[in-house]
Amino acid sequence: MKRVNTSPISGMQELLPEQQATFNQLRENIADVYRQHGFLNIETPIIDRCEILLAKAGGDTEKQIYKVVKTAEANEGADQALRFDHTVPLARYVVEHESDLKFPFKVSQIGRNFRGERAQKGRFREFYQCDVDVIGRGSLPLYYDVDVLMTALDALKKMDLETPVVARISNRKIVTGAIEALNLQDLAAEIYNIIDHSEKVPAEATVAALDEIGLSKENRNKILALMQLSGGVDEVVNGLKALGVVGETFDSGVEELAYVVSMLEKGGFAEMARADLRIVRGLDYYTGTVFEFCLPEHMEVGSIGGGGRYENLAEYFTDLRLPGVGASIGLSRLFYVLTENNLIKSQVEKAVDVAVVPITEAELPYAMEVAAKMRGEGKITTVIASDKKLGDKLKYAAAMAKHGVVLGETEVTSGKYEVRDFS
Amino acid sequence: MKRVNTSPISGMQELLPEQQATFNQLRENIADVYRQHGFLNIETPIIDRCEILLAKAGGDTEKQIYKVVKTAEANEGADQALRFDHTVPLARYVVEHESDLKFPFKVSQIGRNFRGERAQKGRFREFYQCDVDVIGRGSLPLYYDVDVLMTALDALKKMDLETPVVARISNRKIVTGAIEALNLQDLAAEIYNIIDHSEKVPAEATVAALDEIGLSKENRNKILALMQLSGGVDEVVNGLKALGVVGETFDSGVEELAYVVSMLEKGGFAEMARADLRIVRGLDYYTGTVFEFCLPEHMEVGSIGGGGRYENLAEYFTDLRLPGVGASIGLSRLFYVLTENNLIKSQVEKAVDVAVVPITEAELPYAMEVAAKMRGEGKITTVIASDKKLGDKLKYAAAMAKHGVVLGETEVTSGKYEVRDFS
Repeated sequence: MKRVNTSPISGMQELLPEQQATFNQLRENIADVYRQHGFLNIETPIIDRCEILLAKAGGDTEKQIYKVVKTAEANEGADQALRFDHTVPLARYVVEHESDLKFPFKVSQIGRNFRGERAQKGRFREFYQCDVDVIGRGSLPLYYDVDVLMTALDALKKMDLETPVVARISNRKIVTGAIEALNLQDLAAEIYNIIDHSEKVPAEATVAALDEIGLSKENRNKILALMQLSGGVDEVVNGLKALGVVGETFDSGVEELAYVVSMLEKGGFAEMARADLRIVRGLDYYTGTVFEFCLPEHMEVGSIGGGGRYENLAEYFTDLRLPGVGASIGLSRLFYVLTENNLIKSQVEKAVDVAVVPITEAELPYAMEVAAKMRGEGKITTVIASDKKLGDKLKYAAAMAKHGVVLGETEVTSGKYEVRDFS
Repeated sequence: MKRVNTSPISGMQELLPEQQATFNQLRENIADVYRQHGFLNIETPIIDRCEILLAKAGGDTEKQIYKVVKTAEANEGADQALRFDHTVPLARYVVEHESDLKFPFKVSQIGRNFRGERAQKGRFREFYQCDVDVIGRGSLPLYYDVDVLMTALDALKKMDLETPVVARISNRKIVTGAIEALNLQDLAAEIYNIIDHSEKVPAEATVAALDEIGLSKENRNKILALMQLSGGVDEVVNGLKALGVVGETFDSGVEELAYVVSMLEKGGFAEMARADLRIVRGLDYYTGTVFEFCLPEHMEVGSIGGGGRYENLAEYFTDLRLPGVGASIGLSRLFYVLTENNLIKSQVEKAVDVAVVPITEAELPYAMEVAAKMRGEGKITTVIASDKKLGDKLKYAAAMAKHGVVLGETEVTSGKYEVRDFS
């Protein structure tokens, strides 16, 4: 036997046909909901210039991005790469096509992105992301933060999963405002980082980390109290007010958070939306609303999506001010959690409705005719023309299809046939 | 103004939202028809090992393939690359998952492939291909050549294009058999090449080329007569018989071609299927049936797809014999021709059914409620929350949506509103 390694590269999610059918159904449901909410779909190229993709240099991106070279040019520098998210290509797209778009531009993108990270459970190198974004020209009302959140939550709701899904929502102005009010600006990056990591370490470690960067006991306790706030909008807003922090940024963050969460509650998503001050979304480019989607019963996998408000989508490409807000569902990871934990029923038991089985070659043309008729009735129909014995053909037919039609001389002559149930 | 080049890399097909909607509709129609014919959809990773993708080395592939390196490893050799078609990853997939699949394995793949060719009109570096393949284990009846052709033709037919589409079908055994019978085996590659290029050069150049490689006048005329045969099955078979070529391979090729074309005629595709001996599909791995899809009124763009029978899908990866047959629609190129020549109506005039316009912030919660109700009725609905004046909001609404609902205090109080027609 030849021995070539035919497994996919590690970190790729390669599915069998039945799994793929379930995956596709989830993806199509998401696309449907996004469309229902008035988002226009676009696709950007998977390959783009490094100049574009790495315009905002630094961070993990530069370490994880896949660069692309052509064989014939392998010795030249690679100046093209694979997109690692949908946001950067969207920024290029909006600037490039600005005069052809209507703003606010409600846009959806569903496709694969690429990051050369270390492959781990639920963390893929090639992964589907399903994004909705709203881009304004000049300004963008806060309502659109609600719009993208509601759209993504509606998509998750319609999946009818056997486990709850929630959006944990915060607003970066609250933490930024608290840092300002407490005069801790010099420690902003460290504080963000400690909050961001606080769920991965024991509570004592977070306390210790805040002490270590030199916070007074009072300030440390304020930050700790702040990050522990989570729940419904009234509860969290009262908690925030009780902190005794005063300042414009802070107040504006509290107000925005209250607006976003309460609008979601009014909009029928009370069970799926909660304020949660631990959400900061790393050191990302978000400036206001931030959120993560998660499965509270399966926190081990991390978030299954998220997003937020950014003040300027394309600051590296244009002087136009393009504020935006986006939400993304990480479909590959979500699918992984759902299948690993048996949280999703395989939606398609057998892919084929009817298998038409001609007994010999002679009945093939009639089999084609019967199959075409069945398809005309909307049935997924296949003709089985294997050169095996009838018994083997029927076994194969029964494995593939819900129903079968066997066609011999009699059926051809009479034009009558029986549809058997294979279930 | 900042001046960053925000155009996509040359050779990429980046569409505006309305074009993308039309493109998506074509793609979904193809996916639907493939499913209706009983093909199971799969997706393989876009990145794969060079060892797999370049197993069959040589030819243009090696020159055109995009290799992939990670930034952090930019100085190491690139041992991963982007798939350039669906067939090679399918070969890996079938070998890897063989024990989980049922054979004949009817499989569809719809996605982007990548080739670093020189970008030309209708020739993209990143392009969608929509493939159906049937893979047998050990053997595969000739009927499946009909099955894939019929499926692809059905997909093209259902697009309801404003220009005819035909499959030009041949069988490589005919040319191979003629070459054997005329004792020209040493010139086989050259003869294939001359036939393959004959449509791109004047007729005299083909005659001269056949003379140049040293064919006798009689043999040259036989090859010329052979390659000029095209049309319905009877006409072409009679023409082939009249050539006076005798041999097993030749006869078997004629028989297979007659079977495939006549079955398509019987199956309702007489107008779309014709035998055409000029089709050889380059020096590809095909061994029997070969075909190309084209738009006879737009031959300048070349074929818009094709395929054929291959005796062994995965000979580089396994000793298993896996004969197969596949058909591929080149959707990016097809879409390009259709739009360049106005051969397709934009299928979606306005993407949004209803725009709900609250007059002030105060009506937003009620607007969300009305929008949710509309969506429940299956209408694509968006809420317009712009901070512009009402006139501007209505202008935007009318540009996006077929209908509009304006909500002020009166509507909120009465719970009654009017749906206006924007068309």
